[in-house]
Amino acid sequence: MAIITLLTDFGVQDEYAGVLKGVILGTNPDTTIVDITHGIGAQDIEGAAYTLQAAYGFFPEGTIHVAIVDPGVGTRRAIIGALCDGHFFLAPNNGLLEPILRNGSSVTVHGVENENLFRHPVSHTFHGRDIFAPVAAHLSKGLALKEIGPPMALERIQPLDEQSPKRKKSGMIEGRIVAVDRFGNLITNIHAKDLNSLNDHRLSFTVGQYTIRGLAAFYAQSGSSDPIAIVGSRGCIEIAIPSANAAQMLKLGKGDTVRVDDLLKY
Amino acid sequence: MAIITLLTDFGVQDEYAGVLKGVILGTNPDTTIVDITHGIGAQDIEGAAYTLQAAYGFFPEGTIHVAIVDPGVGTRRAIIGALCDGHFFLAPNNGLLEPILRNGSSVTVHGVENENLFRHPVSHTFHGRDIFAPVAAHLSKGLALKEIGPPMALERIQPLDEQSPKRKKSGMIEGRIVAVDRFGNLITNIHAKDLNSLNDHRLSFTVGQYTIRGLAAFYAQSGSSDPIAIVGSRGCIEIAIPSANAAQMLKLGKGDTVRVDDLLKY
Amino acid sequence: MAIITLLTDFGVQDEYAGVLKGVILGTNPDTTIVDITHGIGAQDIEGAAYTLQAAYGFFPEGTIHVAIVDPGVGTRRAIIGALCDGHFFLAPNNGLLEPILRNGSSVTVHGVENENLFRHPVSHTFHGRDIFAPVAAHLSKGLALKEIGPPMALERIQPLDEQSPKRKKSGMIEGRIVAVDRFGNLITNIHAKDLNSLNDHRLSFTVGQYTIRGLAAFYAQSGSSDPIAIVGSRGCIEIAIPSANAAQMLKLGKGDTVRVDDLLKY
Repeated sequence: MAIITLLTDFGVQDEYAGVLKGVILGTNPDTTIVDITHGIGAQDIEGAAYTLQAAYGFFPEGTIHVAIVDPGVGTRRAIIGALCDGHFFLAPNNGLLEPILRNGSSVTVHGVENENLFRHPVSHTFHGRDIFAPVAAHLSKGLALKEIGPPMALERIQPLDEQSPKRKKSGMIEGRIVAVDRFGNLITNIHAKDLNSLNDHRLSFTVGQYTIRGLAAFYAQSGSSDPIAIVGSRGCIEIAIPSANAAQMLKLGKGDTVRVDDLLKY
Repeated sequence: MAIITLLTDFGVQDEYAGVLKGVILGTNPDTTIVDITHGIGAQDIEGAAYTLQAAYGFFPEGTIHVAIVDPGVGTRRAIIGALCDGHFFLAPNNGLLEPILRNGSSVTVHGVENENLFRHPVSHTFHGRDIFAPVAAHLSKGLALKEIGPPMALERIQPLDEQSPKRKKSGMIEGRIVAVDRFGNLITNIHAKDLNSLNDHRLSFTVGQYTIRGLAAFYAQSGSSDPIAIVGSRGCIEIAIPSANAAQMLKLGKGDTVRVDDLLKY
Repeated sequence: MAIITLLTDFGVQDEYAGVLKGVILGTNPDTTIVDITHGIGAQDIEGAAYTLQAAYGFFPEGTIHVAIVDPGVGTRRAIIGALCDGHFFLAPNNGLLEPILRNGSSVTVHGVENENLFRHPVSHTFHGRDIFAPVAAHLSKGLALKEIGPPMALERIQPLDEQSPKRKKSGMIEGRIVAVDRFGNLITNIHAKDLNSLNDHRLSFTVGQYTIRGLAAFYAQSGSSDPIAIVGSRGCIEIAIPSANAAQMLKLGKGDTVRVDDLLKY
């Protein structure tokens, strides 16, 4: 039984996510459909990219990941189908998939152009229903990726419009908060592996007017309402306040700067 | 494997939607259950009616659609089971199903009265759990519709309390915003097919203090922050602002009037 | 086909709930996964306990219920696996499961300690992904409960930190609002069975500055905007306003006191 995951900015109040599932099940009733989330911020391509990157690897190989955050729906922007390290992906060519493909070790990309697979007539406003869902369903029935359209060179993959962390000569790293999760934890784009050469006890994390010394091992550690820095489930540094909402308490959010210093330098 | 869809105003914070699924799976563990949405406004029968009408046709024939927005739960209001153009429906007889049945070409309706199919004791507050879910599960196992209760004449179907668009002699159509979707797009009750005899380029759309000339082909077309009119995924006229939330920007919402004029008249 | 339910405070905006499902399906692709809710208030163990207690019994026996509200994740708090009256449960030992186990007639509890079942490396921040999900998947494949770890004495189950209703000598019962549902109904912790010896018509319910005489049979009964008291779907007294949001109208919420008096005493 094939698995199809959905990650969109459709929300769950309207019928859109349900309609996707109806179309998929109409073509392949034996699919297991899993919502990663429909709660990506409207048209937040970067948020979608990071969330999909954080989630897809926990699904079994062969899973088909459909990611739709698509401000350009109806324009000539391409839709891409990719096979990357055993996982299938369908997404607009707007940067959403690029971090995953850039980090993949085995990557094949095709343009989604085979109109025989589409639902007709194809609307200009809901390619999720008319293109993504039926193509995903066909892939879940074993259709070869090359049947969806011509191969696409990796150079044609639209890069994600993002600000990567910057490493300064001093060893200091400057990153950003890229997500605030349901608990108010501030998730940064600074990956723990970027801190590898650094000794945890020598690190300090500066965000807004707060400076945090050292890494906590788990959320409940501090026992106070002081902010902590911790390696979160995405493998990235998070700023959290145990048993409280750090985003609200610290009045910080997406886009704010986080600086990591090596204390030995001072 | 049968498909049961759920469309309710239960929200997803409480246990109600999960309980429906437990009861269904207890009777038929082989069902695929799909949430169309549980985010219908509390007791918003009209919103449920339009959302179900927009969604159900994208599921395969044989699907059982359970729609519960039921301010009269526990009173003597009837529950109806219908077979309409190959789709099964269960809903309170409060107008929710009426637009679908009115537009169906092959319609059979029965009252849901066979108490052998219910979960007992039947509460006065949660017929979703005690009547809708078990009856849906029995239908998903192949129970004939006539087994749920006696036939019901179409005249006994409660009409939906709605304001349909009005066509004036001038050719002008006056409709309403009936939904605001997650993106802030203002979905009207003016169906594109009602504009068939009109030339797109001659049309203007007036909403609040804004007048929009012509129809856009897709959301990204304008490239400015001006509102556009577009045929949305429901086949109805939507007022949108590309890459922005039209409802917030224009301060418009459900119930507001939308007027379509034919410019040649001036 | 086994059923696994999920009840968490993860919300549905982030990837966390989807990741749980990916891990489960990676171990057992034949599982039916049902969300009871991911909308428990962040770290609200009491809310999780009552919601799970209200929901689990409507699923078929053999269902595996995974409940994760876990402020102590990463600390030495135990995780428990239980078999209670035919249902399996996995939860942190923080009180969440205690009301269910306390009321069960056949209860077996084991500590979740068999690391061979875990996903490695086990993070300090996401035991849902690394422990709960894989252990649930193994149970869904038929693994015996005793394989997850050593038996645990019932005395070691952490009691739920809750305020139970108090019965005064006068027969008056003082309880609390423990949940506000999506409709604004105020759900109390006063179970209808606690009122058994009382005659419904003699009862009055006092909440804030309002006193309600008698129990309504269903929500639509009053036809006015006066608050009613009703036995809700959990079997507990609810304070509601038909067709309106009682929580907003009465400005009442979680933790507020509800008093039930027997009018004959006056």
